Order: sequence, then structure tokens, then C-alpha cells
Amino acid sequence: MREFDLIDWIRSQTRLDPRAVPVGPGDDCAVVRVGGEDLLVTVDQVLDGVHVQLAACGPQAVGRKAMARNLSDIAAMAGTPLAAVANVALPRDFPDDDAKAIYLGLRAGGDAFRCPLVGGDIGVWDGALCVGVTVLGRPTPAGPVLRSGARPGDALCVTGALGGSWRSGRDLTFTPRIHEALALAAACELHAMIDLSDGLSRDLGHVCRESGVGAEILATRVPVHPDAGGLDAALSDGEDYELLFALPPGRADALERDGVLGVPVTRVGTITAERNVTLVHPDGSREPLIPHGWEHGT
Amino acid sequence: MREFDLIDWIRSQTRLDPRAVPVGPGDDCAVVRVGGEDLLVTVDQVLDGVHVQLAACGPQAVGRKAMARNLSDIAAMAGTPLAAVANVALPRDFPDDDAKAIYLGLRAGGDAFRCPLVGGDIGVWDGALCVGVTVLGRPTPAGPVLRSGARPGDALCVTGALGGSWRSGRDLTFTPRIHEALALAAACELHAMIDLSDGLSRDLGHVCRESGVGAEILATRVPVHPDAGGLDAALSDGEDYELLFALPPGRADALERDGVLGVPVTRVGTITAERNVTLVHPDGSREPLIPHGWEHGT
Repeated sequence: MREFDLIDWIRSQTRLDPRAVPVGPGDDCAVVRVGGEDLLVTVDQVLDGVHVQLAACGPQAVGRKAMARNLSDIAAMAGTPLAAVANVALPRDFPDDDAKAIYLGLRAGGDAFRCPLVGGDIGVWDGALCVGVTVLGRPTPAGPVLRSGARPGDALCVTGALGGSWRSGRDLTFTPRIHEALALAAACELHAMIDLSDGLSRDLGHVCRESGVGAEILATRVPVHPDAGGLDAALSDGEDYELLFALPPGRADALERDGVLGVPVTRVGTITAERNVTLVHPDGSREPLIPHGWEHGT
Repeated sequence: MREFDLIDWIRSQTRLDPRAVPVGPGDDCAVVRVGGEDLLVTVDQVLDGVHVQLAACGPQAVGRKAMARNLSDIAAMAGTPLAAVANVALPRDFPDDDAKAIYLGLRAGGDAFRCPLVGGDIGVWDGALCVGVTVLGRPTPAGPVLRSGARPGDALCVTGALGGSWRSGRDLTFTPRIHEALALAAACELHAMIDLSDGLSRDLGHVCRESGVGAEILATRVPVHPDAGGLDAALSDGEDYELLFALPPGRADALERDGVLGVPVTRVGTITAERNVTLVHPDGSREPLIPHGWEHGT
């Protein structure tokens, strides 16, 4: 069973009281009511050999990435991080200084966004390094930006450039788009947003499925990162941690012109009522945009 | 470096704004301010080969224990659970039904205390099973019960009976003392509380250190579980998930007589101003109560 099939099954089993849990599994964060407030909650883990290669990148980069991945999920809801906790499984005989470096990496990742590490659990075992992080956050006063709000006719935009993240090491050094997401939420009406962790093709599929819509992506408009091998990599590589968002089309031109906080914004396509996700080539030919991005479970 | 030394180092590195984070690392839960409310946050992981033996107990018991350990930490603050998230690292080729059973175990553990599983992260790797759980909770209106509030002269009480949990499998089937903690908090002024996960000797040491006090434990008063080999096991085994708490001595007799919600309460000793933790034998001889309970990091 693949990761996403298991998540679908879990969602099918989940019955939540929407007054207590307005958003459950299946978005970038869950939303839980605390007193009169909405609280964002997200959890993500970094596993040695899957999401990182500890021997190559070192322990501090592992800690930083574990925190930054979660902060990217907070950004995807246009949230402000509040606090984090971590569970760390250390290999037996892990050097003390390396354990401390993991903590310092977590701290560095969080401190950059005023997200303190407020607690944790440390275990030692015969297995490899596993770092799980949970981040709490607060949505904007307008509420969290979900995956499910995209509407036909919306412009689809991305921040930054895509592809080649893993090969070039950008997956270890990326800046979660917390500030950019807040600026976007303040500047325009965001209908839907997601962070690009699984690759544009797959993450766009998530947005379309949750919103009950489709999309057309213009091949020439996809911002291909210099580190990427080409368009396919930009569509599929994943670990970009850029934002993909849908908004009323009237605002897209100004965003493309101005970017957001110095980060380029590119309109890559349009949300359609027809539910297919299609890639449109310069010669007018069309092909289904099949998700074949990063799935850790495969 | 042992787990507790690393935690001490982390605490020494931690600088938190007490208005935003009233309680940071070092108690059963952290406390974070959300809007005008205090929120409890706790994280604990279950590692195959350390906290569970998957091949012996099966996947559902692993999920249940991962949830219940965290709920026990919420109980230790006299909190009410609100929601949980989980990060699960599955061994490659883990059977689908076993993955579902972990989820069902998590759900069973949480549903018993109205603690919904609102999100998670699933990864697949070449390593063994790791289940991390974060639980959010709300303190009583009087505020969270910390480890640091014990005062000289306080009675020290425990719920239930201690020792032999791991050998008998009670570590997999225990009921987190959520309801009992709430009843105790309503019935009396709890100065300090902790759940007995590391063993009475070690966990009492945590309370005394955080409170700046000592304690005398009467050997004959320690409630030894029938599964335990004897007093030493009751003092050291850990994984009891009972409550140890300090309260004004005037209330202890009534609690001993009545128990709490059908669970026995035993007064095992007294908090002292002198900082040593001492075991007093029936013949009046005294010995230091050295923590040698469960430390997963050793």
C-alpha cells in the first residue's frame, strides 16, 4: 500500500466533530479549536536514508530540515508559527556532539521564525536516526488557507523556481515561505494554497481533488530552477518547499510583476471546472499531468 | 551521554518567553499560550525493540501504547486531552493490515478519552517501527499541576500498585489516569504531580529536584504490585503510568480511605525541606533512594 492510499483509508475512518476540529487529516495542517481560537497543528518526520542522508549532510542539517519542513506546512495555511516539539530516535552510540547538533539545527530552523522548541522526547535504539517534529501555529484572522478552496477561473501561481532541490541540496537549506505566505494573504484573496513538497504535479493534484476542480498548466510558464534537469524535474522532483496557490485572476498580473518580498511569483496556469489536470505545450498539444513526484512510501 | 544529561543540556540552552511559553522542557507537558488560553503539549515516541517488541505484541498494541503514554503525560498535569497527531515510520514491506492496526490502536487509545487523531505523517524506510505521538490538552481552570510545586510537609501519594509492568504486559494495557487526575485536582490542592514512567525512585527524584525539596519514603508503605518481584521492582521498574503527587497532609487520610474513582491511593511518604531522597525501613534504618529505574538511553 502506498502512503497516499493509506492516508485515504485513514481519512475514510476519521469522524471528527467540526466544532472541535474544523480541519482534520488531509490538508497541510489540522485545525483544532482551543477556547475561542483556531490552532494549526502539523507533524512531519525526517528519516535517515529517506528524507536525508545523515552521513553526507551532518546532524545539524537534519534538525534544521525537520523543523523547516513543518514550518513550510504552516506557511501553506498562511499561518504564523507558535511553538514546536520534537521526538528524536538516536542510533545507539550516537556521538554527544551530534545529538546536540540536531537540537541546534532544530533551534536554528525554529528561531528564524520565532518558533521556540518547547519540549521533546529522546530515545536511543538500534535503528537509524528519526526526527519527528510537531509545529503549532495560528491562522490569519481571515482563517486558514486550505487546499479545498480553489475555484474555476482562479489563477494558479507559484513562488520561486522548481526542480532539482534534492540533487543540489536546496532541500536542506530552503527557507520556509512563512513571511511570503503572510504577505500574500494580506495582499490578495487566497482561495487555496499548498507547499510543494511532493512535486508540482502531485501537489496540484491534491489541491484539485480537495477543491473538486481541475487545472491547466502551461508548460512554458513553469519556472524551472537552474538546478533542475528540465521541465520534467520541475514538475515532479518535489522538496521545493515553494508555495502553490489559487487566487482570483485579476490579482495575478500584479503579483507576477512585483513578486512577494523579493521572491518571484509566476502564474503557471488556471483552475478549470473540468476535473482533469492538463499540461498544455507551446504547440497547443495537451497531455494529462500525471503525478509522478516524490512519494516516500513507494 | 545519557538521555537525562542531554535533556539537562537542552534545558540549559533554552531561553523561552514565559508569557508565550509558561512551561518549557522538563515537565510532563510544555505549556504554551494560545490567545488567552494555556495549552498543554506533550510528545512521546514508541520504538520497536525499546518501548515495545512489535513481533510479540502486534501493531495495534504499539499504536495504543504510543497514544496512552502521551495521555498519561496529560494526566500528570491534571489536563484534559484535546487532540493528537502522530508520525509513523514503517519498515519497508510492512503489511497493509498492520499499518491499519497501528492507526486503530492509536484511535482506540485516544477515543477512550475523547482525544481525536487529527493528523499525521507516514514514512517508509529500511528501519524499524517508530511511532511518535503529540497530544494537546487543556489544564484545569486552576492551571496545570507541575512537578515543581511540592512543599516540605506535603504528603506523597501514589495511585494503584507499582512494579512488574513490563514483565506482565501491563505497559501495553494500562489506563492513563486522566479521569483520576481530574478527580484529584477537583478534590484537593495538588502541589505537584508526575506520572510514573521511569520508576518511583527516578520520578520522585524529578519532583524533588524541580521543587527544590527532598522526600522520605516508607518502605512498608510502597504498594507493591503482585506482578512485581518485590520492593526493589516497585521502586525501580517504571512503566507503571500511575500518578505520584504531593498535597497538603490533611487530605491524605481521606484519599487513602476512599481512593479515587475506584483506584487505590496510598500515602508513601512525606516531602522534606532537606533535599535528600531517603528510603526508611521498618527497623528505622535509612538509605538513600538512588534512582536506578528505567532510562531508555542507557
